[in-house]
Amino acid sequence: MSSLTLTPEEVDAFVARVYPITAAEGYRCAELGEDFAVATWRHDERALRPGGLISGPVQFATADLALWFVSFTQLGLEAMAVTSDMQIAFLRPARGGDLVARAELLRAGKTRITGRVLLWIDGDEDRPVAHATGSYARLRPVEPT
Amino acid sequence: MSSLTLTPEEVDAFVARVYPITAAEGYRCAELGEDFAVATWRHDERALRPGGLISGPVQFATADLALWFVSFTQLGLEAMAVTSDMQIAFLRPARGGDLVARAELLRAGKTRITGRVLLWIDGDEDRPVAHATGSYARLRPVEPT
Amino acid sequence: MSSLTLTPEEVDAFVARVYPITAAEGYRCAELGEDFAVATWRHDERALRPGGLISGPVQFATADLALWFVSFTQLGLEAMAVTSDMQIAFLRPARGGDLVARAELLRAGKTRITGRVLLWIDGDEDRPVAHATGSYARLRPVEPT
Amino acid sequence: MSSLTLTPEEVDAFVARVYPITAAEGYRCAELGEDFAVATWRHDERALRPGGLISGPVQFATADLALWFVSFTQLGLEAMAVTSDMQIAFLRPARGGDLVARAELLRAGKTRITGRVLLWIDGDEDRPVAHATGSYARLRPVEPT
Repeated sequence: MSSLTLTPEEVDAFVARVYPITAAEGYRCAELGEDFAVATWRHDERALRPGGLISGPVQFATADLALWFVSFTQLGLEAMAVTSDMQIAFLRPARGGDLVARAELLRAGKTRITGRVLLWIDGDEDRPVAHATGSYARLRPVEPT
Repeated sequence: MSSLTLTPEEVDAFVARVYPITAAEGYRCAELGEDFAVATWRHDERALRPGGLISGPVQFATADLALWFVSFTQLGLEAMAVTSDMQIAFLRPARGGDLVARAELLRAGKTRITGRVLLWIDGDEDRPVAHATGSYARLRPVEPT
Repeated sequence: MSSLTLTPEEVDAFVARVYPITAAEGYRCAELGEDFAVATWRHDERALRPGGLISGPVQFATADLALWFVSFTQLGLEAMAVTSDMQIAFLRPARGGDLVARAELLRAGKTRITGRVLLWIDGDEDRPVAHATGSYARLRPVEPT
Repeated sequence: MSSLTLTPEEVDAFVARVYPITAAEGYRCAELGEDFAVATWRHDERALRPGGLISGPVQFATADLALWFVSFTQLGLEAMAVTSDMQIAFLRPARGGDLVARAELLRAGKTRITGRVLLWIDGDEDRPVAHATGSYARLRPVEPT
């Protein structure tokens, strides 16, 4: 669907430039493919909720970021796309390590890019902590792919 | 996660008994596994929208049914579970054949069963027409699995 | 937001023409305002689930229709808009009479119309049976309002 | 539905004790009623996105908090309830002041509390920036209300 060849390092450098706070808070791009992307959040005890739980907003932010990275695989880094909607279902307490969010492209349309995201604690992929779906709106509609 | 061994035929017989209209409208169980289920809707020209499109409510009903079948794999046929919430994103016009909805279990919890569903036109699995997520509430909470 | 003055009768005549099955199944437009619309489903025992319950797909269809009617208040009857996504939360068993769905406009944008819908059994507005949110995509993007 | 009489000050004191980071980041309870609650996020330039935009995760966190405050009106402060799912639709760029999220109760059930949330920039209530729906799961099911 795309001939773009971006690397996670290029994505991280871009995020550090346009969203320095996001980078400082420990969010990274771990992997990038033709129609998927993986975002991670580095475990940080200071941000945890009581009981050592990773908060809902941090899970939301990681899922949102993974979906944004997927949009890069379709549009390139400089294209403007903003979150249009996100749904997140929390499945289990998120506790104990780095958070991993793997987003898959479902559809790259003329005005929206839609995907789904599975989230788990690093090393425990069989027990997802959350699942999200969402879409990014392209700020300038283009021809459908 | 479950030791139940149901067949699609048993599911269809159950649906025909408790929801005879659903069966009469062409909905079936096509496949059933440990943590997934496939529901289908048999193409019926009388139910199509202008342009030969399968309507949103038919797609919703097929996704909902697939998720209900997944609940059978966890709870058995006779357990009472009702749809608690469903989100559906329409990805492409749904046109041209039978509709297939494949639901995967994301989590079987004490009070809810959560899953995600991919929908496509039979023979065109690489171009999904919709994606849904949803949950079924168990009417009587049980111990978590 | 709109200077269109449509009547429920005009909407019903339009639906009967383009979606005759929907009209035949008892769906109607009951009310229409500048940024809201009310759709109803006439109680029909033949379509009920065991226990006399109005099914999830019927509730989904009524909510979807109410949101479509809201799009008419912004775009007129002939404009092409299709459901892009819908989320529905089922709140209580839906039993005992006609179903009412009241949709409110949240935002009419360049490419999408977003709204929310409250559903109840006629005469029991204080005990909603479901709540939905969703958006319609304009098939031809226009200038934002 | 509830005889609890909590004040915003009591809620803020509770949040400051159990989620000190949330309090430090500028989230507050502004109002509380029988079946609604208002959460706010104090404008903080350091947390904004390029263009002066309030980020999606901050909007999500404010909506989530407003819904949590609604759960307090039903369960009291000490009850354990966790976010089960959240859907958020972004309607307009969120720019220019404090963020306000007003959550309304839709249903307090045996195992879940469901509500909807409208978000706007303080002083601009007629132009909502986002709308969310979601539910909190009670960790210990109780008798339905």
